[in-house]
Order: sequence, then C-alpha cells, then structure tokens
Amino acid sequence: MRSLLSDKEWLVEESAFNDEKLNYYETIFTVGNGYLGTRGSLEEGHQAGLQGTYLNGVFDHHASFIVDLVNAPDWTSLSIWVDGNRLDLHSCEILEYRRILDLKQGLLYRITRFKDAAGRITRYESIRYANFSQRHLFEVNATLTAENYSADVTIESDIDGQVYNIDLKPAYKVEPRFSPQVRWLKWSRSKHLAHVEAATTDSGVYLELKTLDRPHHIGYASAVKVEGVDHRLQTQTQYEKVGASVSFDLQEGQSVNFQKLTAIYTSRDVDKSQIRSHCTDVLQQALQQSAEQRLQPHLETWQRKWDDCDIRIDGDAEANRAVRFNIYHLLITANEFDHRANIGAKSLSGEGYKGHVFWDTEIFMLPFYIYTQPETARALLMYRYHTMPGARDYARENGNEGARYPWESADTGHEVTPPWTADGKERIWTGERELHITSAIAFGVLSYVNATGDTGFLVDYGAEILFETARFWSSRMEYKPETDRYELTDVEGPDEFHELVDNSVYTNWLVKWNLQKSARYYHWMKENHPSELARLNQALALDDAAVAAWQAMAEKIYIPFKEGEELIEQFEGYFQLDEIPITEWDENNMPFYPEGYNHFNSDTTTLIKQPDVVMLLYVLPDEFSDAVKRANYEYYEARTMHKSSLSPAIHTIMGIETNHFEKALQYFERAAFVDLVDNQGNTLDGIHIASAGGTWQAMVNGFGGMRVKNRKLTFKPWLPDKWGSISYGLQWRSGRLDVSVSAAQMHFTWRHPDHQELAIMVQGKDVSLPPNQLISVALN
Amino acid sequence: MRSLLSDKEWLVEESAFNDEKLNYYETIFTVGNGYLGTRGSLEEGHQAGLQGTYLNGVFDHHASFIVDLVNAPDWTSLSIWVDGNRLDLHSCEILEYRRILDLKQGLLYRITRFKDAAGRITRYESIRYANFSQRHLFEVNATLTAENYSADVTIESDIDGQVYNIDLKPAYKVEPRFSPQVRWLKWSRSKHLAHVEAATTDSGVYLELKTLDRPHHIGYASAVKVEGVDHRLQTQTQYEKVGASVSFDLQEGQSVNFQKLTAIYTSRDVDKSQIRSHCTDVLQQALQQSAEQRLQPHLETWQRKWDDCDIRIDGDAEANRAVRFNIYHLLITANEFDHRANIGAKSLSGEGYKGHVFWDTEIFMLPFYIYTQPETARALLMYRYHTMPGARDYARENGNEGARYPWESADTGHEVTPPWTADGKERIWTGERELHITSAIAFGVLSYVNATGDTGFLVDYGAEILFETARFWSSRMEYKPETDRYELTDVEGPDEFHELVDNSVYTNWLVKWNLQKSARYYHWMKENHPSELARLNQALALDDAAVAAWQAMAEKIYIPFKEGEELIEQFEGYFQLDEIPITEWDENNMPFYPEGYNHFNSDTTTLIKQPDVVMLLYVLPDEFSDAVKRANYEYYEARTMHKSSLSPAIHTIMGIETNHFEKALQYFERAAFVDLVDNQGNTLDGIHIASAGGTWQAMVNGFGGMRVKNRKLTFKPWLPDKWGSISYGLQWRSGRLDVSVSAAQMHFTWRHPDHQELAIMVQGKDVSLPPNQLISVALN
Repeated sequence: MRSLLSDKEWLVEESAFNDEKLNYYETIFTVGNGYLGTRGSLEEGHQAGLQGTYLNGVFDHHASFIVDLVNAPDWTSLSIWVDGNRLDLHSCEILEYRRILDLKQGLLYRITRFKDAAGRITRYESIRYANFSQRHLFEVNATLTAENYSADVTIESDIDGQVYNIDLKPAYKVEPRFSPQVRWLKWSRSKHLAHVEAATTDSGVYLELKTLDRPHHIGYASAVKVEGVDHRLQTQTQYEKVGASVSFDLQEGQSVNFQKLTAIYTSRDVDKSQIRSHCTDVLQQALQQSAEQRLQPHLETWQRKWDDCDIRIDGDAEANRAVRFNIYHLLITANEFDHRANIGAKSLSGEGYKGHVFWDTEIFMLPFYIYTQPETARALLMYRYHTMPGARDYARENGNEGARYPWESADTGHEVTPPWTADGKERIWTGERELHITSAIAFGVLSYVNATGDTGFLVDYGAEILFETARFWSSRMEYKPETDRYELTDVEGPDEFHELVDNSVYTNWLVKWNLQKSARYYHWMKENHPSELARLNQALALDDAAVAAWQAMAEKIYIPFKEGEELIEQFEGYFQLDEIPITEWDENNMPFYPEGYNHFNSDTTTLIKQPDVVMLLYVLPDEFSDAVKRANYEYYEARTMHKSSLSPAIHTIMGIETNHFEKALQYFERAAFVDLVDNQGNTLDGIHIASAGGTWQAMVNGFGGMRVKNRKLTFKPWLPDKWGSISYGLQWRSGRLDVSVSAAQMHFTWRHPDHQELAIMVQGKDVSLPPNQLISVALN
Repeated sequence: MRSLLSDKEWLVEESAFNDEKLNYYETIFTVGNGYLGTRGSLEEGHQAGLQGTYLNGVFDHHASFIVDLVNAPDWTSLSIWVDGNRLDLHSCEILEYRRILDLKQGLLYRITRFKDAAGRITRYESIRYANFSQRHLFEVNATLTAENYSADVTIESDIDGQVYNIDLKPAYKVEPRFSPQVRWLKWSRSKHLAHVEAATTDSGVYLELKTLDRPHHIGYASAVKVEGVDHRLQTQTQYEKVGASVSFDLQEGQSVNFQKLTAIYTSRDVDKSQIRSHCTDVLQQALQQSAEQRLQPHLETWQRKWDDCDIRIDGDAEANRAVRFNIYHLLITANEFDHRANIGAKSLSGEGYKGHVFWDTEIFMLPFYIYTQPETARALLMYRYHTMPGARDYARENGNEGARYPWESADTGHEVTPPWTADGKERIWTGERELHITSAIAFGVLSYVNATGDTGFLVDYGAEILFETARFWSSRMEYKPETDRYELTDVEGPDEFHELVDNSVYTNWLVKWNLQKSARYYHWMKENHPSELARLNQALALDDAAVAAWQAMAEKIYIPFKEGEELIEQFEGYFQLDEIPITEWDENNMPFYPEGYNHFNSDTTTLIKQPDVVMLLYVLPDEFSDAVKRANYEYYEARTMHKSSLSPAIHTIMGIETNHFEKALQYFERAAFVDLVDNQGNTLDGIHIASAGGTWQAMVNGFGGMRVKNRKLTFKPWLPDKWGSISYGLQWRSGRLDVSVSAAQMHFTWRHPDHQELAIMVQGKDVSLPPNQLISVALN
C-alpha cells in the first residue's frame, strides 16, 4: 500500500496521535469529490471526534437555529474486534500511528499498530477515498496483520443514521468557542435526518433517510468485501442504522485485506423512487471490480485535475506543499456536474458557518476555477442563476426590484445570515447591510465570461443575472436631489468593523460598475443576440429606457474620490474617526488590538478588519493608477487588523503590486498556511476555503503577476529570492497557457484548439504568443 | 426550601462535586414512584453523565443484543442562561455544590452556586421528585438567585426523545467494564424510541414516541411555571424533541422560583389514542395547583409508606440510614398498581442486566413487600401470573409441560438471558440451567399467601402457578430405573461457579417442595373451592391422578442427604472436588480468589460463588435441625467467595442463626452498604436491589430473628452490643404487628381489624398477643 503514495512534496503527514489535534486533523484530512466531503475522523471513532460527512447541496433547517448543511452518515466507520477486544485508541496501547494525506492522488493513508490488553499486536493499514471518477462511490481499503497471535477477528461495518449537526445556539457562549468537549453536550446537537428504510440487499445493506424539513431523501448502499480468507458474513438492520459484519480466523503473521464500499445517491441526483436501485447498482458494479480497477479511474481523474491546476515552486518545498494543500481542498469541494450547489465558507470539511455560501465564492475562489476548471466555475455561477428566485424574493421583501443576493446563501437563495452572534449578545448586520455581495456575483459572471469567452453562458444565464442585479441597484440607490447624486446609506462594506456607513466607496464603485457593465452587455445582446434579449426583456419587463436609466444613474453615483487625489476615503466620514495606532504584533507579525479595542468597538476608529479600499484596487485593476494603489495600500495596511482569513492573500497580491515585498511574503505565509499551521486556531471547524482561493490568487496574481486589463492577460511577476521559479497554467478562451516565472525571465507555452495566436503583455510590453511554442521573455 | 428536609438520619448527602463519582451519585440519587425511576443526573447535563429514566414495564429489543428496559426521555433537564452564559459545571466555576437525598420525603434537594466567566454568581436551588400520590406527575422545583448582578435570564426546558440505551454488545470488552468514557462511544448506543408526535399544547409542549419493536407509545406533556416575575414564554417543537423556554430580568439579590412539570402516560396505562389527553389533563391540573398543593399528597403517601416499613436502630445512626436507604430504593421501584411489571436486578436506577427480572424478586425482595406492602407483593406475583404464557412456551420449547419460568424475564415471560458474556468469550448457561427459578416463584406465591391469608389470590391466580410449575417439574424430572428415583442432571444451582452439576441439593429439594405444596393446595382447593378447581382442571387438563403422581414423584426425588447426617453435599460429587483454601481477605474481610482461580475456573474446586446449601437452610427453616444448620454454615461459609451481592445478607441471617455473630456483623456491613460505599465498584450501573431486599431480611429475619415456622411467626433475635434496640413492623394476616427488640426483651403491639389474638413464639416459647396491647417478653 505504501507504494501508492506520491512524492513527499505531495504529502501531509500526521506522525503521532495527539488528542488535542484530533479535530484539527479531521479537517485537514477531509477527503471528497465535490459530491461530498468527509472529515478525516478515525474509522473506529474517538470519544472527542467530530465526524462529518456533508453531501453538497443537502441542507435542512428543523432543529437548528438556522439552516444547516446536513451532517450525513459516515461511510468510513469500522469496528474491528480481535477475539473480543476492540481496536481503538481508548482500549489499546498504540505502538505506531501515522496518517498521510496524498494530495496528488486524493487518498488518505493510515497505519496504526494496536496492542490490546492481552498483548496482541495488530497492524491496521488503510486508504480511504471518495472516488473522483465514479462520484457516488466511497471506499475504505484496509489490511489487518496479526503480528504476534492467531485469533478470531470480526469487522463490523455500519452506516449509522443517528447523526447530528452541532448547533451553536444563539445565547450560547463557550470559550474557546469550539471546545471539542462542549460539543459533546447534548444541547448542542441538531437532528436533521429521519428513518425511511433500513434493509438487507443482495450484496450488503441499504439505509435511506430523509431530511426533516427539506424534501431530500438520502440512500446509502454498503458492503464489505474480503479477499483471500474464509470468512462469515452477517448483516443487520435497525431503524436508523444498518451494518455488515465479517468474521474470520487470522493466523500469526497473516494479513487480510478487506474493503468497505458505499454507494450514495440522493433525491437531488435521481427520483426518490430510484435512489435505492442506483445505490445498489453502483455498489454491485464496484463489488465486481478489483480494488485496482476501482482506483485506476480515480487516479486518472486526479491526474487530469492536477494537470490543469498544479502550481510548482522550485526552491521551496514547504510553500509548494502548502499551495497544493489549498488547491487540493478547492478541488474536492466543488462539483462541476452540480449546478445547484456551491461552496460554503468552510468547504465540505466542517460545520463552521453551517455550509453557507458568501461572496467568498465569487471574489476569492472563483478565479481559481475560472482559470483552471472553467466547467466548475460555470456550475458555481449556475447556482447563483438557480437561486435567483430567492434573491428576487429578497429584493421584493425589502421594497426593491430585481435580484438581491443574500449575504449568506444556502439552497434557496433566501437570506440565511443569523441575526445574532452565537453568544446572543451582538446583532449581526451583515445580512441586512453587506449589499456588495450582489455586485460580486455580477463580477463573477463577467470574470468567467471574459476569461472563457463562454458567451453561450452569458446569453442563456449570465445576462439575466447582470440585468437583475442592475435592476436591484437601480431600485435601491437613493437619489439626493440637493446634490443630484445617488448614494447608498446605512450599509456595510467589506470591512466589517464599520457596520453602518454611508457611501462605502467599495460598494458604490462596484454598484456603478455593475450598472455600467449590465448596460454594456444589454447593448451587446441587442446587437448579437436580439431574439434572446427580446425574450429576456419580456420576461423581466425590461427595455432600453430602463437600461439608459442605469447608465444615467451610474454617472451620478456618489464616490467620495476625485481625479487627482491619492487617498480614497473608505466611506463618508472615515477620515474623521479616531486614529488609534497599532503598536504590537504577534510572532507572525499580525497586529494585536490596541488596548481597549475589539471587534465590536473598533467602529469609532480607523482600524479596519480586512481590505476594503485595497480590495477595490485589486478587483478593478484598470481603474486606478500605481500611485493611488501604493498610497492606499500604505495607508490602509497600517490600519488593517486582518480579523478575517480573507485578508492576508489580498495583502500579498497588493503588497507585490505596490512593491511592499517583505510584507507580501509575510502575508503569503499567513494565507497559505492558515490551516496547515492553524494560525486562526479554528481549523477544527473546517478549512478556510476562501483563503485557499486567495492563496491560489496570491500565487498567480501576486507572485505570478497576472491581471486581466482591458480584457487581456498581463503579467508583472515578482519572486522572492529563495524561489528559483514558479510555474502555473491558465485556461483562457478555450486555450491553455503554461506560464513559468523566474527572476530573469518568463516562459510561455500557448495551446489553442484553433491554433490562434494570443496577445498578452509582460511588464507593460506587448508579447504575441504563437501556439505550441515555448516563448521566453526577459524580465527587467 | 431547606426547611423541607428531614432529620439527618434520613439524609444521604453529596457535599462536593467529583466527576469520578458522578455516575455513582446518579444511581444513589435515583428518584422514582414505582411508575418510573430517574437517575440523579444533573438537570443541566454533564459530559460524562449517564442519564436514565426507566418506565416500569416498557421494554424494547430492536438494536440491542437482548431486550432492554428502555431509557426514556429525561423529565429533569434544564438549561439556564444568564446573559448568554450557560450555567453548567463545564462553563462555570463552582463555588458551592451540595445534593441531599431525603429518604423520608422522596425528594432530591440540590444547591449549586455558579460563577460564570463574567464573574456573575448565581445560586441555584432545586428539589426534584416523582410524585408518589399522582404517579404520572414529575417535578423539578427550582429557585434562582442573582447574588451579585442584574441580567437577563433564560430557562430552557426540554423533553428530548433522542435517548439511547447503552448496549454492551457480545464481543465487547472494556476494563473497567463500565468506564463512563467508553459509554460515550457511539457504537455502544442502542436506539429504542421513534417519533410519533411533537406538538405545542395549551399549557406547554407534548412529545409522543413509540418503541421500535414493541407496541408501546409514550407521551410526555411538559410545561414551565414561573412565579413572581414578568416573563416571556416560548415553546419549540422538533422531530423528536420539544421545549419551552422562559426569559426574565433577574435583579441583583432577587430570587425567582420556577417549576418544570411533566406528565407521563404510556399505552401500558391507557389506550394509545388517550395518551395525549391524559398527559395534558394531569399537567393542566398540576399547573393550576400551587407547589405546596402538589407536594402535600406526595409527602402523605411517603409518610404512609414509612409508617408501614420503617426500621429503627437505636444507637447506630449510620446503620439506620443505610437500612432506610435500602428501603427507600425498594419503595421507589415497585408499583402496587401495575400487575404486569416487576423489579429488575438493578431496580429502575440503571441499565445493568437491562432491567431483567431474576429469582432476586421472589427470594430476596418479595419478603419485604409481603410483610410491609402486601399489595405490592401481590402485584409482583401477578406479573408472574401474566407472564405464564411465555413460561409455558419455554417449557414446550424444551419438550416439557406446564410453566418453566425464565431465569431472566422481561415483558413476555420468555427467556432473555444473553447466551454469552459481554466479552463474547464465555457462554452463559444460567438461562438454560438455573431451573430453580421456577420453584422460587411457587415459593413466593406461598410465602405471600401464608403471610397475608389472601386465599382469594391463591384461588384465582396462585394455584395456577403452583400447578403449572409442578407440571413442569413432573415432566422435567428424570426417572432412573436402576435406582428407582428421580434426578435432575446437567443443571446449575444458586452457586454459579458450578455450572453443570447433577442433583443440586437446593434445586432437588425445592422441586420436591414445589410438588408437595402444589399437591397439598390442589387438595385444599378440592375441599374449599371445588368449582374453581374444576375450572382449572379443565383448563390445564389436570386431574387427581396427575396430582397423585406429583406426590409419588416427590417421594422419589433423589436428595443426597440422609437423616442423621450433618453435612449436605451441594451436588453429587461436590465433596470430591479440589479443596483450594481461601487464605487472603480484603480490608472488609471479603475473600480474594486463591491464586490461579477466577469465576470461570473455580468449578474444579469446592469454592462457591454464593450461598447454595446455606440458602436452602434459610428458605426452608422447618426442615433442618440447628446442628445441621451450624455444620453446613461453617463448612460452606469457609468456601464462599461472595461474588454475588446476594451473598452477604444471607450470611448475616444464617450467621446469627448459627451463633457466628462476628461474621454476621461483617456480612451485614457488606450487604447494607453495598451501594452507599460502592463495595462492588459497580453501583454506577444501578442499585443492587436484591441486596436491599436482603438487608431488610437481615434486619427482620437476622437481628430481628423472625421466621415463619409451621405457618406461625417465631422470633429469636440477637443484637450487637452497640445497638440499644431495633424496631420494625410486620403485616400479618390482615393485621399489623409492631416489634421492638432490645438485649433484654421484646415488645409487641398487635393490631387486627377483627381484634383477633395472635399466637407467636419467642425463643421457642408460645406467646399470645391480644390486640391493641403492648406486650413485653423477656429474653434469655
């Protein structure tokens, strides 16, 4: 089994068991295939374990205080008994313990040597994986070796429907917030799944459950396959649990291999009545294959994925591993085949933010998918298209038109931001006030269309998003007759320390952009797809006059920043706030709050939580001069507390753009290792997947220096001394551009199905890339 | 609230929290009223808590490896939040912690002072009780005091149907067996209850569940009543959980009292369709009463119970408290109104032995009820009458006739002894081989009838048990033509070290007794109740010839003991076993196993687990001379390992009878304190309720010297020096006899509704007791 493992730079290793790190490694070692994510819990369970399997898109509300991404049954669980002694970390002495996540192959490898009370030593080796080729198939492939005894062994394999989400109620406070201990307490559990069917099948067992409020049905067919030994098989069904057990005699020195195979379907995939047959068919087919036959297509899919998206850093294996770790988690959490699911703030690796979808998707993660997995990017945007009915309701409920996307989104597109903090003490205003999510989605649509040239998507789906978001803004902006301008008061920008501001420059600028781009693509449709536009106009009650009004409004949107100025005021009155300087930094050079200040009272100061103006400078690179970028980076960076994992990656990119290289490197460290070194202390709650997307951007847009300006790829790279070179690939307009960067030069290889040339810019100079040639460009 | 408490000798106190004693106190502090028992878990829960509420008679099988007494929802649970901080032992500093079980009043009192993270100190005082007058009503009455703050307080009160039994599977081994840690692990949970209805009602909430295999429905209606403060009430229903929450402002120094009231009915009590209305009616009525109005009849019932059964020991408050503690647990676990429930080996206080009923009832506990609560004794025997169909099946399945009672019995009378030990390694033979349970039930019937004179019970129910058990024996005994006698081979007597023996003297003697007594009462029926006998003869296909055959068989039952001998051989060949002397005793003078021996290999030796021959000498006191009793006590006591909690009490009684007073006192200590000092180390698993019954017998039959000989009450007391006197009461033939014993004399007061005189014997001399007079008898 060891020979299955990749080279070291692809491996994340846990070399000894430490129960304080148990929940951390559960997150880190999540396996998935976009269809689901399963935390890296031990197969045999652990008292302090936080098991979690999350089926993408399967939400339920019921007992939880807000809608949850449902924690579904665990397909990895196994109990192994050697002559009546259970092999687990509570009952046995652990002679060896190691787990390795193979990022390249999507496999979690484990070895544990258990010594039981009777002195028997059993070697347990396993790999587990969520098949990336057959996405409904999940496998634990394990080998047991009796090192010093002969005994009767029983393997119990169950699918247990008695699973719960952890519900941190409002009015619930614990420090530390996610103490694993406290999670055990019954009052924090939230049930979402109820019995439908528990049955024995031809090949194993079948469990079907339904969500309590939502109409989902979930089916699991499971079996244990044992090879090379005489054995006895038994199945058992209970109300909400099914199990298979296998017993055999294990001789001293003998190894026995077995596989737990599970097939999963839900009513999101097939009609309710077909779930069981789909599950059992897939399981049956898998049972007829050898382990190698099942594994091979999985490995091939992983190979294709990595061909598309790997980033290499020569000279820094640690950084390279961290980058790949982030990309791994981006790959396992998104499903290009599912157009009604998206990515929660903690991916499919934990229950933080309850699986809810934020602007994180469009601003932080989408670029990765656009440039490496465009079908996935398209699927993520289709989720926004399909949740438009909820967004339209949300606009109407607030007296507006068009589509107002919710700050937190689950399955319907309705707002699911909890109105209070977990301790019940502080109002959460983000749902009501962070309007900029709506323009972020329009931004995502056009980023995708521009990079891919997928005008089909634009015409069929994207245009409707553009028009409906513009319509929302046109009904939402506030006309001030005294100044003849449009304003936006009582909002919250990206910086969440200041929760009630007027004329957030980021927000207003993006609204203006949204209106202008929507108008522009309206006219483009009129010219190129008149009949589709006519249909849309009819459906949306839209016409040229309305669109002209967007343009007129855009011109009059108040932005407190004038041509010729350098410093942009984050919102009206920001410059009049108290200047409370940051004077202390931690060992990672991250700021401490000035004495007396915290998240909830920094609104009287110029301290900010995360990039806001700096974010604007990044997302709209065409619109600001280098001088403006530099001045604002210097001003705002000195005031940024980085109390969001979204912050460091942006500061890396903009630090490089403004020549603050040392800071950029510090921030990169912070972003790339946020989960590997757990520098926010809450990795146990799930991967910071937006930071993973930000890390990809830090590599490609930061060190790689890539920007799209005037719809053209441009490069202005910078590398730290210790990095010999970096290389990455980009999908661009149906072609593929391989890029490598070293201190002295860049290399490009451009491939395109129609053999078109590609015009790019490198350090401000035009470069033309003929197809299928390695082109080198010297750097200044 | 403190003023509610009784005098000290009625109180069992826990004066500080120790999490290692948590599960122990949960057992000790069980409250109940025969309808249910609820472990003394903390209202707010604890990570290591083993909550348990057991509704008498509600069994289910399903996921468990053998039928379980179902763990039902907890009616005590409360979450209290002070300004968002939860009051519990995990989140708060505990400034004061005390719990007191008031044995006299059936109340569990608690005070805890919580200091939360913000320094707020809250005093929480509560009493909880299972109403002994209205047996479907359960209450937690609590008072909160804000010692040093003013804040918003929320009380969350839920009824959570997501409860499980702890399933120690075969092939499951942990040391220590009942480690609370291990109990948390999911694989040991067993679900029995499923959703039926969760609803809000006029006065609170209602939850109805059903058992998964058995046809029981269980309803809980619950509400929170708050007095003396403006408050806001909210209810919440989930799939398997309902809750009410109350919020109010608590001012510094202010106390607020509230009551959680819960009414419970099951389909064992009323028709399924009526459960909800019964629950809500009882709840509604309770809500209209004051706390005092609800409590008063409960206290009156307790007073009546104690009037019937208290035992006083002057000069030893500790021993007196221990005796009362045992009686308390006997009182709360039996229900005189329920003729289809019995008493499990751990009462209603834990899941040990899964609520199964053993011979413990008839031999160890029934005497207490016969002589103090005869209606309860009758109800317990009615359970045996109602489970006779299962016992008949059992006989038939084994090719016999009549009724063979199961060694372990649950709700149907079928055998539910698990065939294997929990570790899956050792076969449990008791179910197949401990046939003597069947004669124990006949013995219980006649003990009851003789003491009460309740011939109505005998005619209507008891006779059928006598005849059917005799019929079983008559079909089961093995005729040996070579010796012309009846034998019983391949059985197990009370001593469970020797699991496969021939002609267990205890067993054979009781079979003989069973046949003879059955025949005798057949003839008594023929004389006194001929038509009822005719009906029975018809129903059972019984006739005079069959009964004559019982008598003939009884004469020829082989008992390896002859007139003139002193030592009785426990079973054939016992005297030939290895003599392995006991050479070491622990600090309580309890023996250690001789080196190399344990439970499973002592069968080759004369070591025995518990009294067997000595048991025989006790249960049939008429049949053995003092010399025989003494000789056998001395012989067997030296070989008894006391690996059953049933052992010490019998050794107390027989020690006194045979003048081994010092030993008797040691054994008494062991019996009376088995749970209070946890001298078996497994009290966390439930009260040793047979030992509680044995302790009552040790007091009345041991120190009190009471025996029934030739159907007459006889007394031959002995008191240790430090006891000034003891006194106890006996129900006898519709009358009541108050007895007190001191070193020099006995006092008797006899009351009878018809003013009959009572003839008794004291130290072998006849004494006549006229009614309503204090009669003193000097002792030698």
